[in-house]
Amino acid sequence: MRAVIMHGPGDVRVEDVPTPQLVEPTDAIIRVDAACICGSDLWPYRGIEKQKRPTRMGHEYIGLIEQIGPEVRDLAVGDFVVGSFMASDGTCEICAAGYQSRCIHVVGMGSVGTQAEYARIPWADGTLVKVAGEITPERRRSLLAASDVLGTGWFAAVAAEAGPGKTVAVVGDGAVGLLGILAASRLGAERIIAMSRHADRQALARRFGATDIVEERGDAGVARIKELTGGYGAHSTIEAVGTQESMEQAIRATRAGGHVGFVGVSHGVALDGAELFFSGVHLHGGPAPVRRFLPELIELIMTDRIDPGAVFDLTLPFDAAAAAEGYRAMDERRATKVLLEF
Amino acid sequence: MRAVIMHGPGDVRVEDVPTPQLVEPTDAIIRVDAACICGSDLWPYRGIEKQKRPTRMGHEYIGLIEQIGPEVRDLAVGDFVVGSFMASDGTCEICAAGYQSRCIHVVGMGSVGTQAEYARIPWADGTLVKVAGEITPERRRSLLAASDVLGTGWFAAVAAEAGPGKTVAVVGDGAVGLLGILAASRLGAERIIAMSRHADRQALARRFGATDIVEERGDAGVARIKELTGGYGAHSTIEAVGTQESMEQAIRATRAGGHVGFVGVSHGVALDGAELFFSGVHLHGGPAPVRRFLPELIELIMTDRIDPGAVFDLTLPFDAAAAAEGYRAMDERRATKVLLEF
Repeated sequence: MRAVIMHGPGDVRVEDVPTPQLVEPTDAIIRVDAACICGSDLWPYRGIEKQKRPTRMGHEYIGLIEQIGPEVRDLAVGDFVVGSFMASDGTCEICAAGYQSRCIHVVGMGSVGTQAEYARIPWADGTLVKVAGEITPERRRSLLAASDVLGTGWFAAVAAEAGPGKTVAVVGDGAVGLLGILAASRLGAERIIAMSRHADRQALARRFGATDIVEERGDAGVARIKELTGGYGAHSTIEAVGTQESMEQAIRATRAGGHVGFVGVSHGVALDGAELFFSGVHLHGGPAPVRRFLPELIELIMTDRIDPGAVFDLTLPFDAAAAAEGYRAMDERRATKVLLEF
Repeated sequence: MRAVIMHGPGDVRVEDVPTPQLVEPTDAIIRVDAACICGSDLWPYRGIEKQKRPTRMGHEYIGLIEQIGPEVRDLAVGDFVVGSFMASDGTCEICAAGYQSRCIHVVGMGSVGTQAEYARIPWADGTLVKVAGEITPERRRSLLAASDVLGTGWFAAVAAEAGPGKTVAVVGDGAVGLLGILAASRLGAERIIAMSRHADRQALARRFGATDIVEERGDAGVARIKELTGGYGAHSTIEAVGTQESMEQAIRATRAGGHVGFVGVSHGVALDGAELFFSGVHLHGGPAPVRRFLPELIELIMTDRIDPGAVFDLTLPFDAAAAAEGYRAMDERRATKVLLEF
């Protein structure tokens, strides 16, 4: 089968690799229907995250089950499924508490590589959720978004305790930040301040529920958020970048007693203990336990109540030129989110 | 009046200073009945926290109201009061949300200095709580503890979401850590693991509700906590030290999705963003909003349901020799907590 392989910074190829086989009795093999290029794929693409060898890419996916292992109980061959970007056993105490992405048997789907025609999904019952109903093109895009960026934005909003009466600030206008806005809006937030200086992303932010846009960054951005919130800062802040500046911006934009939900994969961040101490904020984040939210998100998508698939602004067929173009477009910020079609 | 002044590391004196006067209409003047020496007073005493000039000391206190400003409404001359170590207006949005220690008009009582015969309490209504009933010697000690160490331990336990069914680990066996144990126990925690290697503190930990003692520190301590919790780590961890090692120990001892309540005043701590990200814990702490808990804590003390005053293992009269001896005893860990009597 064909799969995306990153050979080094800026060097993405589609190559033939062995088609995956069932290994564990709890595995499923899916035929990938669509996959994405993720903001986090840009870390190695830009050489910021070092890779020692050519690496399979991709961790977001929707697809059709082709084979299941003998211990898979809740799924059947032919099911159309959405899965989390982290495979989880679904039974340990961490999964039971809703933190499937930190399951004691967790397998990052990035190590599997879902930018490929087929994928082996470990812990199928604990990872995949079956979709029933008609899969229109719009729903298909949105289901794919649920696999990571929607689930991650949703978790960020939940971690930030977005809800009625709350003012939510959102740091980061990539797909996750934008879908954090959608989540905060669905969760009933009163006011949602998007921090963005790109007109197209601002437009999407407003479509998803942003009530205010702040173009300033860093200290000026924080000052603007304070100004908009009577000097207090936001009740809830979503951090969806993962840099030192974005984390500081998020913490400083939040009032004491408020909540920061941080989901940008942390790169080179060191938090000053004293600043965090005196900030008085709640800090919670990490790899989103997408599986916790999938049943609810699928229900919202299949009843057309949310349209997270709108973040995909570039859809490409799965071939070598397209994959390379997809990465380039993301890197150059010509695209917010790329969908690879099989 | 006489007050404690720190002239430099290890140099504590009692000197004559002007008796405080009402300044703002919301002030009260109290005659201090008892004050404490705090673990945090040891940072400057040991020269770790630099002081530029001789400094008034003390932020914990109980006392009798001697004078009130014209805008004080809820208190009267002659009231016996307990106050928080942070003065707060009691009316801003931050106070209303229960984060009085980060009030937009906050005044740290350390800047006032309560190791003195009298003290001016800013924002009296928002800071002090009147005590009704007979003040026995035991209750007196406990009320003084409520002013900081009990309130701080209580906040740590609440921030760590200690409660029924939870296993709580406690890093730090000073007065705050010990009272965090008492709080976790009152909040219904199922199991409380005290990290301590001092026999006398272990005994107090058990008296306050610890079910297990772990003597190991650092990585070995974390490994022991994991071993005691089926490999998962604690649900809730109280951090009551404030060093790099103690923060890392607390975060690493906590399971993904669990809660770390950190109240040790942070000194030289830098948290690795990636480690925090992948830990999946909730992190919340800072200067405890003691005022939020005071009414409840006073009620528990005045009905003899808790005895936090047991942390005081050295009571000294207020004079020059005694104050110096109190600081020395804390520094040398001969005393857990020192009470200065007036």
